[in-house]
Amino acid sequence: MGNCYRREPIKVDDQMEEECGIFGIYNQDRKEDLSRMCYLGLHALQHRGQESAGICVNQVDELKVHKGMGLVSNVFDKKILDQLKGNIGIGHVRYSTTGSSLMVNAQPLLTRSIKGDLALAHNGNLINGKELKDNLEAHGSIFHSTLDTEVIAHIVARSFKDNVIDAFIESLQQLRGAFSLIAMTQDSLIAARDPYGFRPLVLGRKDDSFIVASETCAFDIIDAEFIREIEPGEVLIIDDNKIMSRRYSDEKPHAFCIFEFIYFARPDTVIAGENVYLARKKMGEKLAQEMNIEADLVVPVPSSGVAAAQGYSQNSSIPYADGILRNRYVGRTFIQPTQEMRDLKVRMKLNPIKNILKNKDIILIDDSIVRGTTSKQIINRLRESGVNKIHVAIASPPVKNPCYYGLDTSRRKELIASKKTNEEIASYIGADSLHYLSLKGLLSILNADNNGYCTACFDGIYPTDGNHEREVDDNGIIL
Amino acid sequence: MGNCYRREPIKVDDQMEEECGIFGIYNQDRKEDLSRMCYLGLHALQHRGQESAGICVNQVDELKVHKGMGLVSNVFDKKILDQLKGNIGIGHVRYSTTGSSLMVNAQPLLTRSIKGDLALAHNGNLINGKELKDNLEAHGSIFHSTLDTEVIAHIVARSFKDNVIDAFIESLQQLRGAFSLIAMTQDSLIAARDPYGFRPLVLGRKDDSFIVASETCAFDIIDAEFIREIEPGEVLIIDDNKIMSRRYSDEKPHAFCIFEFIYFARPDTVIAGENVYLARKKMGEKLAQEMNIEADLVVPVPSSGVAAAQGYSQNSSIPYADGILRNRYVGRTFIQPTQEMRDLKVRMKLNPIKNILKNKDIILIDDSIVRGTTSKQIINRLRESGVNKIHVAIASPPVKNPCYYGLDTSRRKELIASKKTNEEIASYIGADSLHYLSLKGLLSILNADNNGYCTACFDGIYPTDGNHEREVDDNGIIL
Amino acid sequence: MGNCYRREPIKVDDQMEEECGIFGIYNQDRKEDLSRMCYLGLHALQHRGQESAGICVNQVDELKVHKGMGLVSNVFDKKILDQLKGNIGIGHVRYSTTGSSLMVNAQPLLTRSIKGDLALAHNGNLINGKELKDNLEAHGSIFHSTLDTEVIAHIVARSFKDNVIDAFIESLQQLRGAFSLIAMTQDSLIAARDPYGFRPLVLGRKDDSFIVASETCAFDIIDAEFIREIEPGEVLIIDDNKIMSRRYSDEKPHAFCIFEFIYFARPDTVIAGENVYLARKKMGEKLAQEMNIEADLVVPVPSSGVAAAQGYSQNSSIPYADGILRNRYVGRTFIQPTQEMRDLKVRMKLNPIKNILKNKDIILIDDSIVRGTTSKQIINRLRESGVNKIHVAIASPPVKNPCYYGLDTSRRKELIASKKTNEEIASYIGADSLHYLSLKGLLSILNADNNGYCTACFDGIYPTDGNHEREVDDNGIIL
Amino acid sequence: MGNCYRREPIKVDDQMEEECGIFGIYNQDRKEDLSRMCYLGLHALQHRGQESAGICVNQVDELKVHKGMGLVSNVFDKKILDQLKGNIGIGHVRYSTTGSSLMVNAQPLLTRSIKGDLALAHNGNLINGKELKDNLEAHGSIFHSTLDTEVIAHIVARSFKDNVIDAFIESLQQLRGAFSLIAMTQDSLIAARDPYGFRPLVLGRKDDSFIVASETCAFDIIDAEFIREIEPGEVLIIDDNKIMSRRYSDEKPHAFCIFEFIYFARPDTVIAGENVYLARKKMGEKLAQEMNIEADLVVPVPSSGVAAAQGYSQNSSIPYADGILRNRYVGRTFIQPTQEMRDLKVRMKLNPIKNILKNKDIILIDDSIVRGTTSKQIINRLRESGVNKIHVAIASPPVKNPCYYGLDTSRRKELIASKKTNEEIASYIGADSLHYLSLKGLLSILNADNNGYCTACFDGIYPTDGNHEREVDDNGIIL
Repeated sequence: MGNCYRREPIKVDDQMEEECGIFGIYNQDRKEDLSRMCYLGLHALQHRGQESAGICVNQVDELKVHKGMGLVSNVFDKKILDQLKGNIGIGHVRYSTTGSSLMVNAQPLLTRSIKGDLALAHNGNLINGKELKDNLEAHGSIFHSTLDTEVIAHIVARSFKDNVIDAFIESLQQLRGAFSLIAMTQDSLIAARDPYGFRPLVLGRKDDSFIVASETCAFDIIDAEFIREIEPGEVLIIDDNKIMSRRYSDEKPHAFCIFEFIYFARPDTVIAGENVYLARKKMGEKLAQEMNIEADLVVPVPSSGVAAAQGYSQNSSIPYADGILRNRYVGRTFIQPTQEMRDLKVRMKLNPIKNILKNKDIILIDDSIVRGTTSKQIINRLRESGVNKIHVAIASPPVKNPCYYGLDTSRRKELIASKKTNEEIASYIGADSLHYLSLKGLLSILNADNNGYCTACFDGIYPTDGNHEREVDDNGIIL
Repeated sequence: MGNCYRREPIKVDDQMEEECGIFGIYNQDRKEDLSRMCYLGLHALQHRGQESAGICVNQVDELKVHKGMGLVSNVFDKKILDQLKGNIGIGHVRYSTTGSSLMVNAQPLLTRSIKGDLALAHNGNLINGKELKDNLEAHGSIFHSTLDTEVIAHIVARSFKDNVIDAFIESLQQLRGAFSLIAMTQDSLIAARDPYGFRPLVLGRKDDSFIVASETCAFDIIDAEFIREIEPGEVLIIDDNKIMSRRYSDEKPHAFCIFEFIYFARPDTVIAGENVYLARKKMGEKLAQEMNIEADLVVPVPSSGVAAAQGYSQNSSIPYADGILRNRYVGRTFIQPTQEMRDLKVRMKLNPIKNILKNKDIILIDDSIVRGTTSKQIINRLRESGVNKIHVAIASPPVKNPCYYGLDTSRRKELIASKKTNEEIASYIGADSLHYLSLKGLLSILNADNNGYCTACFDGIYPTDGNHEREVDDNGIIL
Repeated sequence: MGNCYRREPIKVDDQMEEECGIFGIYNQDRKEDLSRMCYLGLHALQHRGQESAGICVNQVDELKVHKGMGLVSNVFDKKILDQLKGNIGIGHVRYSTTGSSLMVNAQPLLTRSIKGDLALAHNGNLINGKELKDNLEAHGSIFHSTLDTEVIAHIVARSFKDNVIDAFIESLQQLRGAFSLIAMTQDSLIAARDPYGFRPLVLGRKDDSFIVASETCAFDIIDAEFIREIEPGEVLIIDDNKIMSRRYSDEKPHAFCIFEFIYFARPDTVIAGENVYLARKKMGEKLAQEMNIEADLVVPVPSSGVAAAQGYSQNSSIPYADGILRNRYVGRTFIQPTQEMRDLKVRMKLNPIKNILKNKDIILIDDSIVRGTTSKQIINRLRESGVNKIHVAIASPPVKNPCYYGLDTSRRKELIASKKTNEEIASYIGADSLHYLSLKGLLSILNADNNGYCTACFDGIYPTDGNHEREVDDNGIIL
Repeated sequence: MGNCYRREPIKVDDQMEEECGIFGIYNQDRKEDLSRMCYLGLHALQHRGQESAGICVNQVDELKVHKGMGLVSNVFDKKILDQLKGNIGIGHVRYSTTGSSLMVNAQPLLTRSIKGDLALAHNGNLINGKELKDNLEAHGSIFHSTLDTEVIAHIVARSFKDNVIDAFIESLQQLRGAFSLIAMTQDSLIAARDPYGFRPLVLGRKDDSFIVASETCAFDIIDAEFIREIEPGEVLIIDDNKIMSRRYSDEKPHAFCIFEFIYFARPDTVIAGENVYLARKKMGEKLAQEMNIEADLVVPVPSSGVAAAQGYSQNSSIPYADGILRNRYVGRTFIQPTQEMRDLKVRMKLNPIKNILKNKDIILIDDSIVRGTTSKQIINRLRESGVNKIHVAIASPPVKNPCYYGLDTSRRKELIASKKTNEEIASYIGADSLHYLSLKGLLSILNADNNGYCTACFDGIYPTDGNHEREVDDNGIIL
């Protein structure tokens, strides 16, 4: 996402919000394929954002963007794709909120300035976004959206560098926080990653074309080949047949968001050489080693706990069962729940299978607990199915600290683990016991020697300097 | 569905077509809940049909129906539900085709005749539908749709019985083939099942209300209690505070569609006392016993092979892995595949995970093979991921014979197992070996002593009399 | 329209409801033009109905219809027209109601029966529609709509004639009341008019094609040439290169709806050799002769009174002025009027021009008064503009009797002139005086020697036999 | 409109483009009425723009805008109006183009800057818009639209004045050209008019509320009282119960756009004490005096020539007739005209009435001729109806010079009167003779002593300084 000045307080899933997905291609020879490639790439990245989608291409004489609210498949059709012609394209999918989704916040953001046309697609969150914006406004800049992305565009426009690419690179040095950025001008594709490498960004190739994307799964769908990750602090400029790499920052400790492994990334994506599904399975195995509890069944919360539950079962030899059905058709939530059906949203999505669960002691696996409200509702429904004991096992450590790098956990007071003990949480959600994977255990899986992770949400150690503990108001607006 | 004179020949999934889902409620005290209950019930039955959805209620002075193309959540919103008031309601979801979906075929079908208003929701296929229609047309009936359901309405309208309920019951005796029917008049709810009981139909209760539905999962979402299945050859008439059961037919051997267990029904549904997910898991276990092949991994085709693959893995001790990712966002198929991407539809939906599969011998589990085209595409993609050997294991017997009771397999020539040997099929789809669960093995799981099944698609033994081997033209229209 | 079992009681315009428009073409050589011709023809007939529009063509192997709610330009676009291919086409536009518009009542009505495919487009109202429907239902017919048109289709389907055209002609003999009908089969276009000729229907030609339509203005738009009116009691069958005329009825006195001249028909249409605009102008001239009142200005109610006001002014030498502006953009009426703005609908549509009206004695011209409510609101607004005296002059006689032939004046109790004297009406609407054109004066304009008119709404003399004074309930449903 | 960098070259009507309409209200006591008043006001101004519509209100804590493409009644519904709450509101309707309508150009334009929230609604065209924009871009401003309005917002944002109102007033001094502006902040409504007063802007009152609008017809619909015109060079600031007037400019000669009288304004609007309909009628009277030609009929081009034709007829005693019908239902133009029907757009809209015109010598009245293409098509159609002589009479002088103040006549080469003599134009359009009202005659009607007009399009005398003869490219983009 760009930044998140405003968020909906209550979600259907008590999960961390999904982020944004970005995609870019410099399609040297086959112009007719361009928008089709962007479409497929965004389709593969759809799990990173369902609120809005957009594609920008370089037409003959100007950049042209099409974007809209909803899924990639709702925003685009054949006719629209056919009209998006060019040899450079970037795309963006934005996280989903159930409430006030705003068209003005859809990306790519296309701006026209003295530097020329520039389109930006952004994933991450600037910790100095507000400060930069205040400064720009003080010098007369006007803002139309609440996006960090627009802040970046203004910095580029005000740069004293004549060239838009130089201005763009210069602007990166003013940004603090998390950002993976894909930009395009009339004749170049640019990709940059913040100096800590919080958010993923990978480089690939298909025939003569270069491609950049949030995750490798966007390469698979178009049969592109993975080359390497874009380095933290690196900016790539791709133009006519050549690719140029520049460092715009001193080296920092790598701080890749560990939640990409735990929850965000698609299971078939590969990060740092490790497949995400296998990593999650290993988290379940490790959790089984750490817990060593007796039970009849290992049952995942679908779909977030499935991989870890498989690992847990294989390590513990406790049988695995899909004891909760997930309805793959998403129903609308306009029905007002009555007192007796307060859990309607969960009920429309998940259904415990009595024949499997009745009188069983189960280990209920999920990837994480943020606020605890959904866990509480699921366990409540499980109780109705006649299950005996419910041991909740979470394949990651307790989330105790807010994230300032793009996850929707900015408010400490909503993080159940920041104020309650394990026993209190277990009691709140109605579990017989509650277990978390240790941070040490988690890191042991992820080859932490080679690759540094941001674990601030678990241990409060923020990679960036300064006071991050900014206040947010009840609407989640960072003050 | 009603009947299926016309069907799309090529599907994204080379699966049997899903059928229709039906739901009815006599909601004695709480009128305000009626349309909400119908909506939730249809939402739970959405897997049985995604083409169209509809709800009919008894307003103060007439039956009122709202229906439309698409998912339940697309067809209804709060405003529409608020306008559907009454104490009796029936609903319908219809199977999905990618092509010529026709609004005129959406149900419930509301007809006005001398017998009064009658609304019908139908799941099944009449084998004498064409014959009945010809006879009715010869006597001057006009048809607006291609639905069997409309045939039934005409027979009711032409009955010499004065009372619509008597006329409805009388009409049932003329129908041959598969049907589960829910009907409503201004003051009664009626549910009937064909004498063989091909299609499911269950009775439930919530507080003072009676509910009928295709599957028990529709009861779970509204917290209704399962009472019993409606018997083959039984008709239930529910009106003011009472429920009346009548038999309209001699007893026939029960011939429940075995494919409901294998593929159609939702995993959390209970049929004949058996949970569908557990039954599928047992099919995988049985398959493992019958096959006894060495491999490194058991990998399901998602989602259809997941339960059987879990059973196979547990019985064989070969590790299970979700080696193929399923993208849960359905992309549109308007993109014309190029020569190099003929498998685009499969590619947009499924992605093999190289890190898991590379150099492995796998047992690839699916529930069934109909035409073989999708299996071929999946295996082709798996080969690209560097897998070693692929042993395809199908958790049901070969489908060799067309179904005349509602499944979309009416054309024998398209059934790959009707004309090829196992070895030929394996060669066609690119597998190293191909294995099916034996019919005996399948029936051993399903307590066949207590409950008879229609297994005609496997063994060609059709429960109903007469020549079913009707010709169909290239559009699937039964001549 | 077909018939009108149900109508909205309150209208924005206190006018008689507009009727339906019908169009048909047998387009012998230029298939690609067919749907385009239908579209243009319906566009020219749009004033006869704005609720729904539809076109039916003969595709290669079956009749295909596209219809929808709204204006012709909303229902059709280029893509849809391109898909409607054939060499025979019929179209229909239906009257507009502000309330419960039902898709099921849109036409052409396409039915499939033992006689083959038949599509019908109907303008008029059967006085024995209910009786025919009861009889059909008693013999087992099912109805989906509330259209007379569906009644006709059933009679055709039940005919003992083998041939659909013979059956259609036979069916005409059972119909009583007003109907102009255009029908098509796979290879013929049929047009018929009731024996009294209540509703208009004209025949034209363009190159090798024959065309039938409600009004000549549909010929002008496609440059077709007017040939003649279709005779009362005549049926035309047009097929491969030939046109055949048959009489299916004894000769009756011609009873053309005089309100077509007064209000319904488009001003550029020619009926019985007379241009409608000129006829209306003459009504105003005649009215001036009959009235002979002094005033400062002649002011029309726009647009219905414009032609008559011009005639009045020219005959009386009282200056004409467009003293009331009509906003040509129709605003939605969802705004709830407050006490002070009860006349919001009139206010959004009409605005008196103070500079013109202040202190003037005016003659306010309109074509007719039905209920008087709109006249009252207009006069009320005029009073606010400071006008002095308002003499209301109506260019037709008082409407005292309900119409059973297709106009929405079925309820005698709503006709203000059926229960009030001129003085009482003047007082109710707030006029200083009220004047009507005499029936004798009206007929003197219309060459009544050559051509008979139905004047039942004025004089109560109904051309058809029997008791027409059927009761209607409060919803306008004819019992 | 804001400015018009880009316009569609070909129009259905060969008329000058309509402009924009603006509306503002400070609704002191009755908050619930606010959005309803804006809706009605914009509905009355709909003739000034049909491309897009928008309303902005001051919510509790921020300005909120809703805007969309299409008519006011398409963009707003009850639900949307109910959500627009506040006590200050402004609205905008934008001119209609048939082609590339851009949502990003819809107004009001809402911007957030260091000065606070500011919403702007603009009618007019800046002649230094490009220069101001270049300068702003050179200083790092980013533009999202092609609107002059955005230029104004940037100037406000960059002002050194702390207060947004002071900054706004200061910004006005940098603007050159035509503008009537309505702006709002969280607690004030501001209205300003350029020093020459090119575009109209009037002040009214309803109970305790002040209202500003483009035309007085917006007052009539809500029963507001006209107070006075806003003076050229005046800015009004309306806030809590008070209204403050300031002059921000030296006095300039008043240069009101004379085309507002001739074509743009609604006939019921009053400008400078004169009703527009009456003024147009007088133009026809004057034209008759100047021409003195014999003919059988005076026929207007509907609707633009109606008032003048009435005046012409009354002065000349040549009978008036509505000899050309205007279809009030606008059909879509997606149908590709064939060679034989090149005039399809005109044909769908206008139909000459043969019975009226045949063998007659007519005086065909219109308000103006811009390119001549539509006149040519109308006359061509008239010829087909058998008319004898056609004398074209235009109720204004020849348009010879482009307008730089907001009308779409920026390209001199397209103005037929800039390069052809009267005889050449008559020959081109196919008229027997062509006559224009003299400028002297026109001004004699409009009390030119009291009120100055811009007549640059007729006489080339531009009120503002500098070289206006800027080049525009083929897309109408001002270079």
